[in-house]
Amino acid sequence: MGYPETSEGFMVESFDKWTEFKKQEFKLKPFEDNDIDVAIDACGVCGSDVHTITGGWGEAPMPLCVGHEVIGRAVKVGPAVKTIKVGDRVGVGAQIQADLTCDNCKADQENYCPNSVDTFGAPYKDGTISQGGYAAYMRAHEYFTFKIPEEIPTAIAAPMMCGGITVYSPLVRLGCGPGKKVAIVGVGGLGHFAVLFAVALGAEVYVISHTPSKKDDVLKMGAKEFISSGEKDWSKPYKFAFDFILNTADATHKMPLPEYFSTLKVMGKFHNVGMPDHPISLMMQDFAANGCYIGTSHIGNRPEMEAMLELAAKQNIRSWVEEVQISEVGCKEVVERVYKNDRVRYRFTLVGYDEAFGKRG
Amino acid sequence: MGYPETSEGFMVESFDKWTEFKKQEFKLKPFEDNDIDVAIDACGVCGSDVHTITGGWGEAPMPLCVGHEVIGRAVKVGPAVKTIKVGDRVGVGAQIQADLTCDNCKADQENYCPNSVDTFGAPYKDGTISQGGYAAYMRAHEYFTFKIPEEIPTAIAAPMMCGGITVYSPLVRLGCGPGKKVAIVGVGGLGHFAVLFAVALGAEVYVISHTPSKKDDVLKMGAKEFISSGEKDWSKPYKFAFDFILNTADATHKMPLPEYFSTLKVMGKFHNVGMPDHPISLMMQDFAANGCYIGTSHIGNRPEMEAMLELAAKQNIRSWVEEVQISEVGCKEVVERVYKNDRVRYRFTLVGYDEAFGKRG
Repeated sequence: MGYPETSEGFMVESFDKWTEFKKQEFKLKPFEDNDIDVAIDACGVCGSDVHTITGGWGEAPMPLCVGHEVIGRAVKVGPAVKTIKVGDRVGVGAQIQADLTCDNCKADQENYCPNSVDTFGAPYKDGTISQGGYAAYMRAHEYFTFKIPEEIPTAIAAPMMCGGITVYSPLVRLGCGPGKKVAIVGVGGLGHFAVLFAVALGAEVYVISHTPSKKDDVLKMGAKEFISSGEKDWSKPYKFAFDFILNTADATHKMPLPEYFSTLKVMGKFHNVGMPDHPISLMMQDFAANGCYIGTSHIGNRPEMEAMLELAAKQNIRSWVEEVQISEVGCKEVVERVYKNDRVRYRFTLVGYDEAFGKRG
Repeated sequence: MGYPETSEGFMVESFDKWTEFKKQEFKLKPFEDNDIDVAIDACGVCGSDVHTITGGWGEAPMPLCVGHEVIGRAVKVGPAVKTIKVGDRVGVGAQIQADLTCDNCKADQENYCPNSVDTFGAPYKDGTISQGGYAAYMRAHEYFTFKIPEEIPTAIAAPMMCGGITVYSPLVRLGCGPGKKVAIVGVGGLGHFAVLFAVALGAEVYVISHTPSKKDDVLKMGAKEFISSGEKDWSKPYKFAFDFILNTADATHKMPLPEYFSTLKVMGKFHNVGMPDHPISLMMQDFAANGCYIGTSHIGNRPEMEAMLELAAKQNIRSWVEEVQISEVGCKEVVERVYKNDRVRYRFTLVGYDEAFGKRG
C-alpha cells in the first residue's frame, strides 16, 4: 500500500498511552472530485489535540493521528476543484467537510453544519475515520482548503488554521473594531491570537490574566493594558467597561464569573472559546446587573478564514511559535508541554516533515 | 401621623409568616421636587413579591409591603414634575429611582443603573425603606411614573408595569418582529404577556410548555403552535428553528437546556426573565453546536415602557387577570396561589382599594 491509498502519521493507541506516538499507516478516505491531497510541511499543536488524546472530551476512535492546523503543498487536485492548483501552498483547519446544502451552510454557517466532519477522529460516509496533520498527507475537501498568502511563513501560518480562526471569528462577529473596548482573558495559544487580531482590527485591548509574567509579552502584542486577576478587587475600576470579553482560558469553572460579568457593558457578552472538561454553575441573577450573556462559538466560516489570512498578510501579523521537529519524541514533548502548560509561548508548530516522511509530491 | 408623612399597607412581618398580611402604617420617603404621590387603585401580584417574602431571594427588610405593578391617581406632584399633573391616571413598575446621571442612565439603560432603587424593600439615601403597592399611597420619582393610556382599564394595565415590561423589553431588544420565529417557554404571568406582545410585534410565536391544558389559551392569545415539552423528542422537528427563545419559566435548573439550545438558530439566544432560586449547571460544549448564548435582562427602560403601553392601547392588548379584593385575606390568597401555581390564569390584580383604605385624593 502507501500513498495515495494510505498515509503515514504519528498516532496514539489509547488514552492511557497518550504521550506514546508511533509512526503508523492509516487509510485515506476515497478521493472525490472536490478533494485535494496535501503533502504536509507543518502542523500547529492545538489544545484540542491534547483534550482528545487524554480522553478529556470523551470517546475517540483509536489509533488516532491528531493535528488540525495544517500547512502543506497541494500535490493532487480533483477535477471539480476550482480554487487550488497543484503546487499551491495551502492550509487546512479543524473542519474538513460539511454537506454545503443545509440552511446553515447556505448562510455561511458551515461551521455549524449538522453534517460537519472534524479534521481528525470523525467518520466519513464510507466509514473511513478522518486523521489529522501529524502525518505525511491529508485529503481535504476544497471548501476547507485555503490558499496561504505568500507573506505568511509556513510555521507562522499553521496555528492560525484553528487557533487563529477560533478567536478571529467571534472577534469579528462581536463587532471588534475602532471605538470598542475588548477584554481578552487568558494568554495561551488562543489568547495570544486574540490580542494580535483584536489589536489589528482596531479595538482597545485589555488583557486579564493571572500570570503577571506575561505582561511584557501582551504589551508587545499591542494590548493597551494588562489586568492582573490575582489582585484583590481587580475588576472594580472596570465596572461596565468592556463591550465584550473573549475568554480563552480553559479553567472557566474555577473563575469568579460574576466578577468578570461586572466588567461588561449592558447586554455585553462573555464569549468562551475554550472548551473545558468541567461544567460551570451560575445563578440567573448573576447576569441581571447588566443583562449580559455567556456563550461560545465553534471555529469560523470560510469567508472569515480568508479575511483573517488577508489581514495577517497585510498587517504582518506573526504568531508567536516555537518550532519542534516532528518525530515520536517531538510529538510527545509538545503534547506534554501543552498539557502541563509548560513554557508554551504561545503555540508549537511541528516542522521538518521531509526528515520524518521523506520528500513528497 | 398619616398621609402625607406615612401610608398604610398590607405588610408581612417575617419570612416564616409570609402569608400573614397586616394593615400597618409605614413612613414615606421625604417628598422631593421630582416626586409624585399616587393614591393607589390597583396592584398586580408578581412572582417577585413571593420570592421576596418567602426569603427565596435572600434578606429583606421587615416588616415589608410588596407589590410593584401599581396603578393609581396622581394626588400631588412636585414643582419640577413636567410629565404628570394632579388627577392623571399613572402607573409605577419595579424601579422607582436611579441616579439618572451615570453612563447607563444617559444611554437609556437606567434599569441597569448601579444606584437604582427598587420599588419595595430598598433603602433611599435618607434611610427610608421603599414600600410597595399593597398600600394606600406610593411616592415615586417622575421618571418612573407613567401616564396610562385611557384605552387600558386599570386592572388590565397593572400587571404590565412589571410582568409586561419584563418581557416586552427583551422581545424588542432581541429583534422580535415580522419574519422572526420566536419561542416562548412557560405560560404563567410572564409567559402570557410574552405571547401577547410577541404576536403584537408581528413574530411567528411558538409556545413550549409542559402543561398541555394551556394549549387552547395560548392559541387564543395568537400563538402559531403549542409544543408540549413533556413529549419525547419534542425538540427534533425544531432544530435550528428559532431566532431566540424567551424563557419565562422559573424551574430553569430542572430543564434539559441543551435540548432547548438545539432549537436555536446559529448565535441565537436563550434569554431568561425568570429569576429562579437555584443555579444552573452547563458545559461550554452545550453551546457549541450553534454558538448560542444564555443570559437575562432586568425589566426595561422608560422608552420601552411608553412604547409597550402605546402598543397595548393601539392593539387592544388585554392582560388575562383575575381581580381579587385587597385585604388581609385577599393578599394571603394571591401569594399562596402564586407560590403553588394554583389556577393562576395568568395574573392577579388586587383591586377595591377604596374599600380597604377609604377614598383618597
